[in-house]
Amino acid sequence: MHTVSNVKKFMDENFLLHNDSAAQLYHDYAAKMPIIDYHNHLIPSQIAGNHTFGNITQAWLYGDHYKWRAMRTLGVREQFITGDASDIEKFEQWAFTVPYTLRNPLYHWTHLELQRYFGIEEVLNPKTSKEIFTEASRQLGDGSHDVWGLLGMMNVEVVCTTDDPTDQLEYHHQFASSGEALKMFPSFRPDKFILIEQESFMVFLNKLSEVSGGPIKSFPDLISALKERAKFFASLGCRAADHGLEYISFAVFRDNEIEQILQTKLSGGALSQAEVDQFKSAMLYELGLIYHELGWVQQFHLGALRNNNPRALRTMGPDTGWDSIGDWSQAKNLALFLGKLDSEDKLAKTVIYNLNPADNEIFATMVGNFNDGSRKGKVQFGSGWWFLDQKDGMEKQINTLSNMGLLSCFIGMLTDSRSFLSFPRHEYFRRILCAMFGDEIEKGEIPNDMEWVGKIVQDICYNNVKAYLEL
Amino acid sequence: MHTVSNVKKFMDENFLLHNDSAAQLYHDYAAKMPIIDYHNHLIPSQIAGNHTFGNITQAWLYGDHYKWRAMRTLGVREQFITGDASDIEKFEQWAFTVPYTLRNPLYHWTHLELQRYFGIEEVLNPKTSKEIFTEASRQLGDGSHDVWGLLGMMNVEVVCTTDDPTDQLEYHHQFASSGEALKMFPSFRPDKFILIEQESFMVFLNKLSEVSGGPIKSFPDLISALKERAKFFASLGCRAADHGLEYISFAVFRDNEIEQILQTKLSGGALSQAEVDQFKSAMLYELGLIYHELGWVQQFHLGALRNNNPRALRTMGPDTGWDSIGDWSQAKNLALFLGKLDSEDKLAKTVIYNLNPADNEIFATMVGNFNDGSRKGKVQFGSGWWFLDQKDGMEKQINTLSNMGLLSCFIGMLTDSRSFLSFPRHEYFRRILCAMFGDEIEKGEIPNDMEWVGKIVQDICYNNVKAYLEL
Amino acid sequence: MHTVSNVKKFMDENFLLHNDSAAQLYHDYAAKMPIIDYHNHLIPSQIAGNHTFGNITQAWLYGDHYKWRAMRTLGVREQFITGDASDIEKFEQWAFTVPYTLRNPLYHWTHLELQRYFGIEEVLNPKTSKEIFTEASRQLGDGSHDVWGLLGMMNVEVVCTTDDPTDQLEYHHQFASSGEALKMFPSFRPDKFILIEQESFMVFLNKLSEVSGGPIKSFPDLISALKERAKFFASLGCRAADHGLEYISFAVFRDNEIEQILQTKLSGGALSQAEVDQFKSAMLYELGLIYHELGWVQQFHLGALRNNNPRALRTMGPDTGWDSIGDWSQAKNLALFLGKLDSEDKLAKTVIYNLNPADNEIFATMVGNFNDGSRKGKVQFGSGWWFLDQKDGMEKQINTLSNMGLLSCFIGMLTDSRSFLSFPRHEYFRRILCAMFGDEIEKGEIPNDMEWVGKIVQDICYNNVKAYLEL
Repeated sequence: MHTVSNVKKFMDENFLLHNDSAAQLYHDYAAKMPIIDYHNHLIPSQIAGNHTFGNITQAWLYGDHYKWRAMRTLGVREQFITGDASDIEKFEQWAFTVPYTLRNPLYHWTHLELQRYFGIEEVLNPKTSKEIFTEASRQLGDGSHDVWGLLGMMNVEVVCTTDDPTDQLEYHHQFASSGEALKMFPSFRPDKFILIEQESFMVFLNKLSEVSGGPIKSFPDLISALKERAKFFASLGCRAADHGLEYISFAVFRDNEIEQILQTKLSGGALSQAEVDQFKSAMLYELGLIYHELGWVQQFHLGALRNNNPRALRTMGPDTGWDSIGDWSQAKNLALFLGKLDSEDKLAKTVIYNLNPADNEIFATMVGNFNDGSRKGKVQFGSGWWFLDQKDGMEKQINTLSNMGLLSCFIGMLTDSRSFLSFPRHEYFRRILCAMFGDEIEKGEIPNDMEWVGKIVQDICYNNVKAYLEL
Repeated sequence: MHTVSNVKKFMDENFLLHNDSAAQLYHDYAAKMPIIDYHNHLIPSQIAGNHTFGNITQAWLYGDHYKWRAMRTLGVREQFITGDASDIEKFEQWAFTVPYTLRNPLYHWTHLELQRYFGIEEVLNPKTSKEIFTEASRQLGDGSHDVWGLLGMMNVEVVCTTDDPTDQLEYHHQFASSGEALKMFPSFRPDKFILIEQESFMVFLNKLSEVSGGPIKSFPDLISALKERAKFFASLGCRAADHGLEYISFAVFRDNEIEQILQTKLSGGALSQAEVDQFKSAMLYELGLIYHELGWVQQFHLGALRNNNPRALRTMGPDTGWDSIGDWSQAKNLALFLGKLDSEDKLAKTVIYNLNPADNEIFATMVGNFNDGSRKGKVQFGSGWWFLDQKDGMEKQINTLSNMGLLSCFIGMLTDSRSFLSFPRHEYFRRILCAMFGDEIEKGEIPNDMEWVGKIVQDICYNNVKAYLEL
Repeated sequence: MHTVSNVKKFMDENFLLHNDSAAQLYHDYAAKMPIIDYHNHLIPSQIAGNHTFGNITQAWLYGDHYKWRAMRTLGVREQFITGDASDIEKFEQWAFTVPYTLRNPLYHWTHLELQRYFGIEEVLNPKTSKEIFTEASRQLGDGSHDVWGLLGMMNVEVVCTTDDPTDQLEYHHQFASSGEALKMFPSFRPDKFILIEQESFMVFLNKLSEVSGGPIKSFPDLISALKERAKFFASLGCRAADHGLEYISFAVFRDNEIEQILQTKLSGGALSQAEVDQFKSAMLYELGLIYHELGWVQQFHLGALRNNNPRALRTMGPDTGWDSIGDWSQAKNLALFLGKLDSEDKLAKTVIYNLNPADNEIFATMVGNFNDGSRKGKVQFGSGWWFLDQKDGMEKQINTLSNMGLLSCFIGMLTDSRSFLSFPRHEYFRRILCAMFGDEIEKGEIPNDMEWVGKIVQDICYNNVKAYLEL
């Protein structure tokens, strides 16, 4: 079986598609579908204002901790990463790094983005660095590659940003009246009001009371303020909430206990771990009721171990690339939490995302406990997230979902990204998906029925999420 | 490496066998071996009475929570699943669902079962639904497809059912004297007597005392009653026990402590978690001694998180498709439990099955701690179970066992099924096994010695389990 | 896609290399690189004394618990494994076992070692047993296959042994002055001084006080004695420490608490689990400071569940093949421990190895938290270890590292072995590595740039670890 070499061209039009069935599924079915990016961290003001980037460093390197981690691992000094080096110097260090990222998703992402947004087919390395910097920066500035242009090139139909409950959503409001075909909806991310053990809890509480126009003196006040904000979000098209937690807290609690815990906090007292767990459990439950009432999707991103480098946290602050994967026990609390809401018939549409791939099967089978026939794919095992948002991670998520649930009901890919250049990741996902179906068609493991498999592919790429979000 | 497409026919005679070595191993070695289905949940009365099914819905859909979960995920209402819709209506909903199960094992199982039992080569979908319902139901009723017929078609030699210690085994007794070549043995499943924290414990205890002919007033009484039952099971050919637990309990205990715990329970008192753990540890230990004395195989199915949907539990009861995979720590207690029995040279032949595939390597290496040269494969890492009983799950189990133990000593596949139509899963397993060996032969990673590899395959499919169960 | 069979010869020159790109990478780039075996358990006296083995059983079977476990699983009695059977009898039982190890790494290792050291191309089985025993034993005795010869055949440049802090390193000293091109450096393994809960702690403490020339009456005494020993190790070229622990202990402690704990131990008192955790945390921290000061690499092998068979432990002692994989939570403590050292800018170069592959992603992302740009690959996710030191385990480690870090910065393979015949495992690793890169070149997933990919391969095989250890 020593195949005679027949090396395929690097990242050509059939990138990741290794037979005709896969290529046909991608080119004839998947590629044409618009993009609904239902969870990301794009900056609303940049969308509303149709931001233009000054150069490729600003668009690519200013906020991307994936790239930062790679550069640090190679031994690039912080000055050239988040420091005071010039944009050209930073780009040169990135160009130096790229050839060392072989087999990392950054290598594919980088070249997909150069190809799709800028028509640049060369690989990035120190020899091509200057030329690519110049050409990409030129295009970014020539009017075709402003934010609306970038999103338009990728056929993006909807983006759902991630927003603080206290946010006034002025950019969402402004953009809604811009007449652009693109839709931008907010998402509700109230974790700050759950994490009562953090010092900043009181700060956020005060901010919330200002925004919601009344003092928050009790737990019902807090829930009522959050509900009011949620309704305001809904009025601007919000249809999803999001949570990023280590694990789901589930402790038995009574209303008076929660009230007492909040009062202790309000009066500056200290809380025990048990009280913190009770409070979080109560908050998740009450928020779940709100989401259900509003017909929203609740999303839970579980399993990140954050801010592990104290030195970097001191100098750079959070979310600068020092996070990793945790190994908390997830199953039992998740089941009890979802079960409690479902028991009262108040379980909203739910997506659960795990960061530790060792939990794939736990999450994939968990959703089956609450898919009750009331709607197609009501509870979803979310797409590969963060460290898992790469070929191997996606394949494992897709395979696990296939084997333990129904892949056909999957709402598919999202970028979860801060970058306007990340949208080819939808293409990346679609190619991987088509390759998996295509390989099985070729092997006779699924029927050679292009029309049906193509329909399933289109459902996963677009139709399912459109129906799920009621767009 | 863009292969010119040469699409293989869907599920033809070389299904899953992608080269000549694999095909030769399957067709010349594996296919001919009889089936010893050493653990399942078939209903003894249906075997003894040679049951005939009224139609394909009854045989396929009445008890199959795999299918139910798929239907619910797609949005099919419960009425058409476990509700009062007609058998034809239910079948139509299943036929509607099947095309959406692509890449799920249900898709392969469904069509393997249609092909092998009924000679139906078409795929099931709404267009073929009526015709397939009619034809399969006709065959089920024509005398050829009664229970004995179905088992005979699959070359089944032995089935081991799963039975309550209080069961009188009248159908096992009756069938043993039927003269059928097929053997049906009971298995001993005493979990009800371990789960002392459950309300029903006292109910089962009373039932046991009735059956065993004397009051159970002490822990020795309990053990003695169970031992008597085990001997009765042994008299009808039982050679295995089975346990389905979240994890193995292992707490240090003294006899007087256990006695005190049981007395508390008998008198209606409440038990602490520590007491529950001690009692379970004592029960597992005492049962282990019984199994060793009788020369049985003890099986442990570990890691299921059960009955997670309270609403469904209220309306439908347990085991109706609302279970998932747990993430308890398994290794240490398992080692201590097996080590305690082995330390006294009282460790029975043992099979451990994990439900969380993240535990594969833990289980695969655990068995090596107790394989002491006393018998080939004395302690076994069990075949992919429940959610893992699919191609990916089997391949991972086989690969892990191969790398961390001896695949050649493996006792292979079982259905664990409630359905008389599940036996092609043995074929499915065998094809996967042969494909794995065949691929490595083609690649030069194992020698091209068909006779030897074929012998190993036959050992795994049949000979090893036959020797293991001393059949 | 039913490939016409074209069976590749078993383990030929392109073993594991399934296309021209892979073969070219291996033969033109990887194969020629010398070996730096930076962590193993070779016996220094055998290197210093250039030991000659009496026969192949002595070299192969006397200390290899991998082989012992396989033989026991197959049902070979202990007499023929570690017992009093003759060397020829033991070899015959091993030859009987080998054909049953198909798909286990032992099968590949066995034949690689026969091919590379002895030029024996036959497979080992009962028919070839006598002939192979005779021929291999002859070569071992003919002057060409003494220890220096064996290492020279494999182009070994450096070996780092694993040594007790109290060791006088006389063989390292002796060998350093032998004039051999081969370098042998010690490594520092002070676990005995961390595991304060073990009875033997006091024995080791007394031994340490003897060797370091003064009584150890306080925690500062203990640290100071260990630091003195570390400096002595450094004077003989030591550049790495190693730890084998279940998990990293991390408890908050104060100096006076640790002093009190040690005093309790010195006076024969009992310690609570909390005290044990505090002491371990303090020791790991203090040792970390020493390693950082000396510019060493600290290695942590985490996750083994040891000595699980009490019967075997009684009769054979520890490390005789009764260990398996544990499932402790690893992430949080590891992050806190490394973070504490890094917070003070005292984190040494670090390699973390996991035994449970379910933790691969945790470890691969953990290293990214502490790679701060100060040096290429300062913190490393270690190569597949023990049960994971096989094709599947290596591929998973390489894939995880690729996706979640930079494979290009990896310091690559080590044997971790007690056997002088284990060095073809470096070749095995290199073939697997080249196969993975080669496959992606052929598929167009990485550029067909042999020079660059070849450089990366050579870095991983040799250059990275040479720079990392400052050799």
